Amino acid sequence: MSDTFSSSSVVPDLSGGKPWTSDAPVRSTQVALPPGMVHFGIGQPDFNLLPLDLMRRAAEHRLAQGNPYLLNYGAEQGDGYFRQALASFLAARYRQAVDAERLLVTGGASQALDLICTLFARNGDVIFAEEPSYFLALRIFADHGLRVVSLPTDDEGLVIDALEEALTQHQPAFLYTIPTFQNPTGVTLPESRRARLAELSRRHNLLVVADEVYHLLDYGAALPAPLALYADDANILSLGSFSKILAPGLRLGWIHGTPALVEKIALCGLTDSGGSLNHFTSGLVRSLLELDLLGPYVEGLKTVYARRAQALSAALRRELPEASFDDARGGFFLWLTLPEGVDTPDLLDMAQRYQVGFQPGVSFSSQGGMRRAMRLCFAFHDIPALELGVQRLRQALDDYLGNR
Amino acid sequence: MSDTFSSSSVVPDLSGGKPWTSDAPVRSTQVALPPGMVHFGIGQPDFNLLPLDLMRRAAEHRLAQGNPYLLNYGAEQGDGYFRQALASFLAARYRQAVDAERLLVTGGASQALDLICTLFARNGDVIFAEEPSYFLALRIFADHGLRVVSLPTDDEGLVIDALEEALTQHQPAFLYTIPTFQNPTGVTLPESRRARLAELSRRHNLLVVADEVYHLLDYGAALPAPLALYADDANILSLGSFSKILAPGLRLGWIHGTPALVEKIALCGLTDSGGSLNHFTSGLVRSLLELDLLGPYVEGLKTVYARRAQALSAALRRELPEASFDDARGGFFLWLTLPEGVDTPDLLDMAQRYQVGFQPGVSFSSQGGMRRAMRLCFAFHDIPALELGVQRLRQALDDYLGNR
Repeated sequence: MSDTFSSSSVVPDLSGGKPWTSDAPVRSTQVALPPGMVHFGIGQPDFNLLPLDLMRRAAEHRLAQGNPYLLNYGAEQGDGYFRQALASFLAARYRQAVDAERLLVTGGASQALDLICTLFARNGDVIFAEEPSYFLALRIFADHGLRVVSLPTDDEGLVIDALEEALTQHQPAFLYTIPTFQNPTGVTLPESRRARLAELSRRHNLLVVADEVYHLLDYGAALPAPLALYADDANILSLGSFSKILAPGLRLGWIHGTPALVEKIALCGLTDSGGSLNHFTSGLVRSLLELDLLGPYVEGLKTVYARRAQALSAALRRELPEASFDDARGGFFLWLTLPEGVDTPDLLDMAQRYQVGFQPGVSFSSQGGMRRAMRLCFAFHDIPALELGVQRLRQALDDYLGNR
Repeated sequence: MSDTFSSSSVVPDLSGGKPWTSDAPVRSTQVALPPGMVHFGIGQPDFNLLPLDLMRRAAEHRLAQGNPYLLNYGAEQGDGYFRQALASFLAARYRQAVDAERLLVTGGASQALDLICTLFARNGDVIFAEEPSYFLALRIFADHGLRVVSLPTDDEGLVIDALEEALTQHQPAFLYTIPTFQNPTGVTLPESRRARLAELSRRHNLLVVADEVYHLLDYGAALPAPLALYADDANILSLGSFSKILAPGLRLGWIHGTPALVEKIALCGLTDSGGSLNHFTSGLVRSLLELDLLGPYVEGLKTVYARRAQALSAALRRELPEASFDDARGGFFLWLTLPEGVDTPDLLDMAQRYQVGFQPGVSFSSQGGMRRAMRLCFAFHDIPALELGVQRLRQALDDYLGNR
């Protein structure tokens, strides 16, 4: 899922001269970035890393097959051949077997979450979410009239004791969790907590919606198995996406989970009417998978993002020694906490004058908290821009502290 | 939107030897048709009419532009250039100006309807729908916990007096109507009723959700303007789709309506998180529109479908003189009513033995009615198959009548 920065109507100046900068007068992209600005708040891939050539080869390959199935309504659960290719891709990375029958093709993790809210919750229901959590998921819950009860997290992620306690007071429609490289904190839930979470899911018949879109973007960290693989006797729907490992504009993702839950989604009115939620695009990506083009691309991305994450950490240690943070071990984000007395929403106003932006921590709180924190994305900008942005943050912070 | 026939696990045998018949073992398509069967119930395009070559040219053209915007998150309302190209395409066919700012890109009409249920209704709300109506829309409403109050239709479509009366007793979240080439009846709402409907929408602040996916498939009939163009001071969201005029597998459509309502959708949590609901595919179809390839394709489709509709009518007059129906003037369907005493769900059981199928009228009723009626689709099968299917219907009906 993305983070938008759509308050401005200016479209990005991504160093001119490229053919596509002529698109500028009309909004083509969700990003709207004032020229020259470094915005750590944009949780999107770098335009310059997007695989246009790979998609071109995939489209040529698939559209040369002469298979009209590609253009008619697709099977409700998603094309069987695509799901088989995806299952092999995931199995190689999870180092465990993945059953294609437990995968359902979606129009991206956001659509999957929206559909789960429709099918598994009702207006007024309580759901559990982490504090802090992905702020745009909170907006989707609000659109469905769901009441968020937030659960605390620590440096190992969701506090399972707190979940167990909350289950004695509420019967939530589901728990929304981001177990790997959490958005915004970057924390990964250890195996022991995953096992306890699955056990609670079984015992309390608790639906766990695991947003695992960053799981395949680890920068050398040894990862526990995704929650998707705990689904056997638990009630788990894991959200996967090609947005972070290929291209967000494809609006292609998958749900991986407990067969009975996956089947309920496959049999809903939306898929009965429209068929596969993104059939044509899944056919093109099937070619990427079958031609073995996606794996090497993801490896390349991980190398670039890992370098950017290291450069951001180094610049922050140099320029903002008073800030505390953990190095990012995967995903898109670094979570920074500033000393007592700093209010990051106020700091953001000052930062704009220095042409730097970020996502203030309060955006991720369902309780107006996290006001000393900010989330920095290292995926969208290159290393020189990241370093420039940190210098500007330093200046903005000095100005902010000096003016109090 | 489509009609599925997914009860069987058999995939279609579309006269073998084609490269894609090797896909048979795995479900790739929503259609599951026993070999040799003629199924008038499948509301989908003929596989042999789907524009693989056009999509190939569109993909080559768009992916050669070197524009990474195509692959990142798209603008929430949909790519501005695509919406401009679509507005021109529609304006030429409506013979009226279309404002691109009143268009929002969707992942198909089914997704649009699902999203409208989320944003404009709540569990337990009453909505109005026509009797009969598109049966899979009724399933989407059920998934949202909406209570359908059905309004009568006659040979000019929705009975506006009945709507006015119903508005004195209910405050519906919205009215769902299919004003042009209605599914299943094929009836088109005349201009006078459209004007009254728009007036009622204004006066009662009634949200009208107009499913206009068949509006561009007229077979020579002079059509009133789509309800989309009545949106000025009324509360109208019109659903458009490329499923019927290009390819259902693309999952690409649009909402055309009142600016404030369109804006509410553009600003919802789902689009804030995921951006344009089908950005990449809309970029390819932008090329189809800009290269002027879609218009000629649609004209060709209309010629083929018009011939099939005529052939079906002629065969029915020959073989089933006791049946009553109006010739189809557009869309995909012909609505047939059999004499007193025939129960089409029972007849369907008999018909299967003769390798012919149809959608019984009761499927389209929210009250278990329409039991003498059936909906026949003439888009999926070619003329020889349609004629064979009608002969089988005759045999099945004789057997059914003889066995009572």
